[in-house]
Amino acid sequence: MQIVVVGSVALDSVETCWGKAENALGGSATFFSLAAARDAQVGLVAVVGEDLPQSARELLSSKGIDTSGLQVEKGECFRWGGRYHEDMNRRDTLFTHLNVFEHFHPVLPESFQDPELLFLANIHPSLQLEVLEQVKDPRLVAVDTMNLWIESSRAELVKVLERCDLVFLNDEEVRLLSGKHSLVESVQVIQGMGPERVVVKKGEHGALLFDGAQRFALPAVILDRVKDPTGAGDTFAGGFLGHLAGREKLDHDLLREAMIEGTVLASFAAEDFSVRGLKDLSPAAVQQRRAQLRQLVAWPK
Amino acid sequence: MQIVVVGSVALDSVETCWGKAENALGGSATFFSLAAARDAQVGLVAVVGEDLPQSARELLSSKGIDTSGLQVEKGECFRWGGRYHEDMNRRDTLFTHLNVFEHFHPVLPESFQDPELLFLANIHPSLQLEVLEQVKDPRLVAVDTMNLWIESSRAELVKVLERCDLVFLNDEEVRLLSGKHSLVESVQVIQGMGPERVVVKKGEHGALLFDGAQRFALPAVILDRVKDPTGAGDTFAGGFLGHLAGREKLDHDLLREAMIEGTVLASFAAEDFSVRGLKDLSPAAVQQRRAQLRQLVAWPK
Repeated sequence: MQIVVVGSVALDSVETCWGKAENALGGSATFFSLAAARDAQVGLVAVVGEDLPQSARELLSSKGIDTSGLQVEKGECFRWGGRYHEDMNRRDTLFTHLNVFEHFHPVLPESFQDPELLFLANIHPSLQLEVLEQVKDPRLVAVDTMNLWIESSRAELVKVLERCDLVFLNDEEVRLLSGKHSLVESVQVIQGMGPERVVVKKGEHGALLFDGAQRFALPAVILDRVKDPTGAGDTFAGGFLGHLAGREKLDHDLLREAMIEGTVLASFAAEDFSVRGLKDLSPAAVQQRRAQLRQLVAWPK
Repeated sequence: MQIVVVGSVALDSVETCWGKAENALGGSATFFSLAAARDAQVGLVAVVGEDLPQSARELLSSKGIDTSGLQVEKGECFRWGGRYHEDMNRRDTLFTHLNVFEHFHPVLPESFQDPELLFLANIHPSLQLEVLEQVKDPRLVAVDTMNLWIESSRAELVKVLERCDLVFLNDEEVRLLSGKHSLVESVQVIQGMGPERVVVKKGEHGALLFDGAQRFALPAVILDRVKDPTGAGDTFAGGFLGHLAGREKLDHDLLREAMIEGTVLASFAAEDFSVRGLKDLSPAAVQQRRAQLRQLVAWPK
């Protein structure tokens, strides 16, 4: 398998000033897979309840995503409800029902145990460690996390990071994890914990790549309408890793390209609710937006 | 005169986690002039008290800035005191003493009345209107403002904007002025008020240029240490307008270059307290940082 992702498949209820979606397909592994599967073979590991709509599974399969690692348990899917503020940079969680996720332990099918690339989406670090125990030596292990785990499960998270090559974090998480205020110092502290590559996701402000001592800054696509940013970060990670799969050398220029692919795909995710922006996305639309981003950031002649 | 700036010359007391500066030279017109004078002839209009240190006036003169529009009144200089939070993105104002600024009415010397470019720094819109009454038709009028004037003096500000070609705003001001939440819609509303060019300053996240329908996004330089961001926005504006002075055509590529010059100079301003980062800045240091920024944002080959 080129890429294995372990994370959540969820049913989200999201309200923004542009409308709302109820019990709509979401979850970190879902967004990641839909993005990564455009460029790579993807195997998904997650747990769902018996209430996952058949259409959701069909969507994943139709994109070539291997769902043999999708456990179906008695009960309901993980459900999250949130409401975004009008500026879209803040949101309030209305409810979190773990449901079948509460007793989840990831189990990788045999065909998933020797992946080229591994993405540990934002789940409890102890589950991320369980995944690491099940894989042979991937070429690159990337991890996402959140403030909750940084504060409540730091010891396990530190063990995870020791075994990772790349971490995706937002501004706040970078500072929380490092205990530093300067971004540069924070990143150096985190690189010292294991991952030589640190990607700082800044939402509408773009993303920064710290690759050893090399740095790349990329603004986000300027969207007329951000309807629902949920899943944009996981879509970014999916576009990023999808671009690395099957490559001879993971050099710095390839990582810059990966930043671009992540940024482009995340822009589509944020333009609509749930996975609507991703599910019928044509290669031509992606290419056009990549060209638009290139023009947006072009250094003058 | 190539550029005339009307704004404040102040004595600032600033505390950050890196230290503090007391009664140190600051003010919008000061930072703007020091940046713009690197590339252009600059005439400064402001008011100061009898307590302005001789060294401040000497610094301005040594950079070739024409201070014949600097009124000296009985009393003390405008004083501002502030303390930055550890993340440097928020600050608390500790005091604002208007002093001689309270009764300021800008008077442009005759040699200032036909400027190529005019910068109306962040002062009350009614004073900005007084300036506009005193100038012949400049090639480009740029304006800065703040949330206070947007909320308290909207009518006057709207009159100013009708006569401007370019406005510098931050994220929050863009939305406050337009009453919209989407950045793109906000900018369109503001363009409809007068200025065809809108520059959105985002501090450590960089800046966006909306030039008619064309857009340019530029990240900020990544600094090891941001010691004091006070004045970085005015320095940005100074670098930007300084680059436009004496040019044959103010076309879009030139505006992109201006964004770069503004970003580069602002990075030096933020690296130290007061004007220390700007006062002994060598052309070689500027060139090196411009190259560093270019590398930071370079699209992969």
